[in-house]
Amino acid sequence: MAEFVTKRSVDYSEWYTDVILKAELADYSPVKGCMVIRPYGYAIWENIQAVLDRKFKETGHSNAYFPLFIPYSFLQKEAEHVEGFAPEIALVTHAGGKQLEEPLVVRPTSETIMYAMYSKWIRSYRDLPVLINQWSNVVRWEMRTRLFLRTTEFLWQEGHTVHATYEEAEEETLKILYIYKNFIENYLAIPIIEGKKSDTERFAGAKHTYAVEAMMGDKKALQGGTSHNLGQNFSKAFDVKFQDKNGNWEFGWQTSWGVSTRLIGAIIMAHGDDNGLFIPPYIAPIQVVIVPIWQNDEQKTAILDLAYKLKNSILKDYRVTIDEREQYTPGYKFNDWELKGVPIRFEIGPKDMAKNQITIATRFKQSKSPCTVDAIKPKLESIIDEVQKQLFTRAKIFRDANTFIVDNYQDFLSMIEEKGGFFHLHWCGKKECEDRFKNDSKATIRCIPLDSSKEEGKCIICSEPSPQRVLVARAY
Amino acid sequence: MAEFVTKRSVDYSEWYTDVILKAELADYSPVKGCMVIRPYGYAIWENIQAVLDRKFKETGHSNAYFPLFIPYSFLQKEAEHVEGFAPEIALVTHAGGKQLEEPLVVRPTSETIMYAMYSKWIRSYRDLPVLINQWSNVVRWEMRTRLFLRTTEFLWQEGHTVHATYEEAEEETLKILYIYKNFIENYLAIPIIEGKKSDTERFAGAKHTYAVEAMMGDKKALQGGTSHNLGQNFSKAFDVKFQDKNGNWEFGWQTSWGVSTRLIGAIIMAHGDDNGLFIPPYIAPIQVVIVPIWQNDEQKTAILDLAYKLKNSILKDYRVTIDEREQYTPGYKFNDWELKGVPIRFEIGPKDMAKNQITIATRFKQSKSPCTVDAIKPKLESIIDEVQKQLFTRAKIFRDANTFIVDNYQDFLSMIEEKGGFFHLHWCGKKECEDRFKNDSKATIRCIPLDSSKEEGKCIICSEPSPQRVLVARAY
Repeated sequence: MAEFVTKRSVDYSEWYTDVILKAELADYSPVKGCMVIRPYGYAIWENIQAVLDRKFKETGHSNAYFPLFIPYSFLQKEAEHVEGFAPEIALVTHAGGKQLEEPLVVRPTSETIMYAMYSKWIRSYRDLPVLINQWSNVVRWEMRTRLFLRTTEFLWQEGHTVHATYEEAEEETLKILYIYKNFIENYLAIPIIEGKKSDTERFAGAKHTYAVEAMMGDKKALQGGTSHNLGQNFSKAFDVKFQDKNGNWEFGWQTSWGVSTRLIGAIIMAHGDDNGLFIPPYIAPIQVVIVPIWQNDEQKTAILDLAYKLKNSILKDYRVTIDEREQYTPGYKFNDWELKGVPIRFEIGPKDMAKNQITIATRFKQSKSPCTVDAIKPKLESIIDEVQKQLFTRAKIFRDANTFIVDNYQDFLSMIEEKGGFFHLHWCGKKECEDRFKNDSKATIRCIPLDSSKEEGKCIICSEPSPQRVLVARAY
Repeated sequence: MAEFVTKRSVDYSEWYTDVILKAELADYSPVKGCMVIRPYGYAIWENIQAVLDRKFKETGHSNAYFPLFIPYSFLQKEAEHVEGFAPEIALVTHAGGKQLEEPLVVRPTSETIMYAMYSKWIRSYRDLPVLINQWSNVVRWEMRTRLFLRTTEFLWQEGHTVHATYEEAEEETLKILYIYKNFIENYLAIPIIEGKKSDTERFAGAKHTYAVEAMMGDKKALQGGTSHNLGQNFSKAFDVKFQDKNGNWEFGWQTSWGVSTRLIGAIIMAHGDDNGLFIPPYIAPIQVVIVPIWQNDEQKTAILDLAYKLKNSILKDYRVTIDEREQYTPGYKFNDWELKGVPIRFEIGPKDMAKNQITIATRFKQSKSPCTVDAIKPKLESIIDEVQKQLFTRAKIFRDANTFIVDNYQDFLSMIEEKGGFFHLHWCGKKECEDRFKNDSKATIRCIPLDSSKEEGKCIICSEPSPQRVLVARAY
């Protein structure tokens, strides 16, 4: 039998780790808090990178690469920034056999090193906008780590732009926010609520932060990506200035934004079930697994011939794998590929061969259906679109069913404790009220939604006026 | 006028740095020895990655990601390895506000951390071969650094494979060597001599190392990539074992191999000239720059219309840029794009418009030639192939003209001092003779060529028998 995982319905947290290890997405490393991303997990990241990288380039961004090491003094130039990151940094103190004069920070994020360079490169309004992205590793020394969700080192992209006006910077910040939302909804099949962070939750050094928030299978929220309008905070700290058309020197208006390998955690938690992963077909490293079923060598040859014809010729534009392993039964293989979350399975047995057909099953475990070899290409295309859509719909129905509008504080506290979920409640905007329900409920303001109806009301804590409801949930 | 660079013919070393900075390929960073790869330079790296990544995948390799940090004790498990790398390592001693119990090495290469994981993953011959590649940053604390060629941090790919037999590992080592050779010759247009390293020059911990060697514009050699047969040195140190078909436990046979951002240095030095860079069209971020030439607004509109039609429609499969800058003259723009090494330039002026044609110039500065708009697509395709071929041929002629077969030691010493170049000479295989001509000439054995005629002879130092000539040169 295949290695089964802890059931999701029994222990969500155990299931999460179990499925990652057994599906070979990632593994623990000998270095505390650091993970190894195995080929199957990394292939998901490569697919994520390919789509986002294309979208960034279509919107005028270029990639570049800045140093891993940042002089400690750079971090200190922006007061909030150093306060936010100092507790989590890793320091290189010795190199080349000697103690360094100034310790180097292993980048937790690259604002400071990048803007030190921007300050050198930017002279004129003609040099703007600067639209640079970087795909890289970053390090934040976390006390409690979880594979993909919170690791000491992780992979991400960080965009860093400079504009001539506040309005352009704000437009960029929102443009990227919607690239993230559309990507996560359309490719990862996870519905998003996009909004602004409260001051407590915004990025250290930003003017304001936007984020995309998603509901996981245990009804907790996960922040999928953030887009920060940095205002002139960093440009003043790093002297990022330009001469405008009239020859006056002005500080640039900046943004930064990122998503990370955390998105792989979101895919796992949003779509997985008791049997394992379910990877959305648009992003799946393997979209189709072909399981050949033979009783003798003659059958085997004919079936594998067809399987290879499908993989290498008819379906060459899709990501297809053939499971030829001799040591496992078809039943074992079915379980194994379900655990790995492959969205579509083709079975080819002697009966299929006789009818020149393939038997198709999806990871939803609906009834299987046959398809002739001639019709398979358009059929696969429509199944991929359909499975992708169904996954999104399932996630959206689940989220909506677990989203509540509440106006009574005690109701909120008992509901979040008993059922969990997303709560839309009124908040006046004061930190003390935010702190109060954070302490009472262990939930945080995930965001102040952008697409909200802006219905006015009264703060659930203090009853003072609230301009709109905010999204509150326990979160990863 | 465009910012001109120091002439290559006047000061090669100064020219090299100058052209990198002025063409905006890279910049110095505030961290000693680390460089910033700017968008134009990074785009070359992305093109290199795209081709190599495809070739690795076509030959069965998958990408993965292993931690940046390696416990110091891991490095010590392979004696030669730690000896080779210890002087160059950067150490993280503090993190999360505390001193670490064991310092962490910032990876200089990943054999040790990867094989610790392989040891956990590999159980059976069925798990072999393991064919994993990683694209990442690595850190080696170098005393003297040069942009792209030798920097404290650099980007590379490192492949790490495990096989059931020595023969398979050797086959892999050579397969990759020829992927490197073919890539560098066909895409970077630089002729390669491939061969084995002497024991002195092999990778710390390898059984033997193969390398691809190229001649730069100053006649010095540059190692473009290495492929190591690690034998069982690391598998024994890290307990990478598998059960063979008969149930016996055996140590795996391993390989590792890599190329880095150094290849960008090779492109610069192999093809650049007094006017700047010359980037081979197959790898150029901008294959064609269109310089519109107008005297009035009416002309401008018509010319830009055609330019955008070319860029976005007719030539959309090519990498085309339009230089619309108002503040510069066409002459300035020509110099600027020559400096940046764009291989092909289209000029469109009023006379061209009248004839429905484009004037084409290549970076070789041969005479310009017109081409009608209708014929431009096939014409461009053939020009790209032709320029690529001419670049390779030019580099090969230069290399061959500066390659010498020598049998007299004094001749060798005076020739390498006066002219420089590649020298094929006989060597007995003893370290003392190798050390002797290294000390006398500052040249090293670049490799023992694989495609050599294996002509036997007598060592140029000691006159003892030599099985074949070896390649000797001063090197980067």
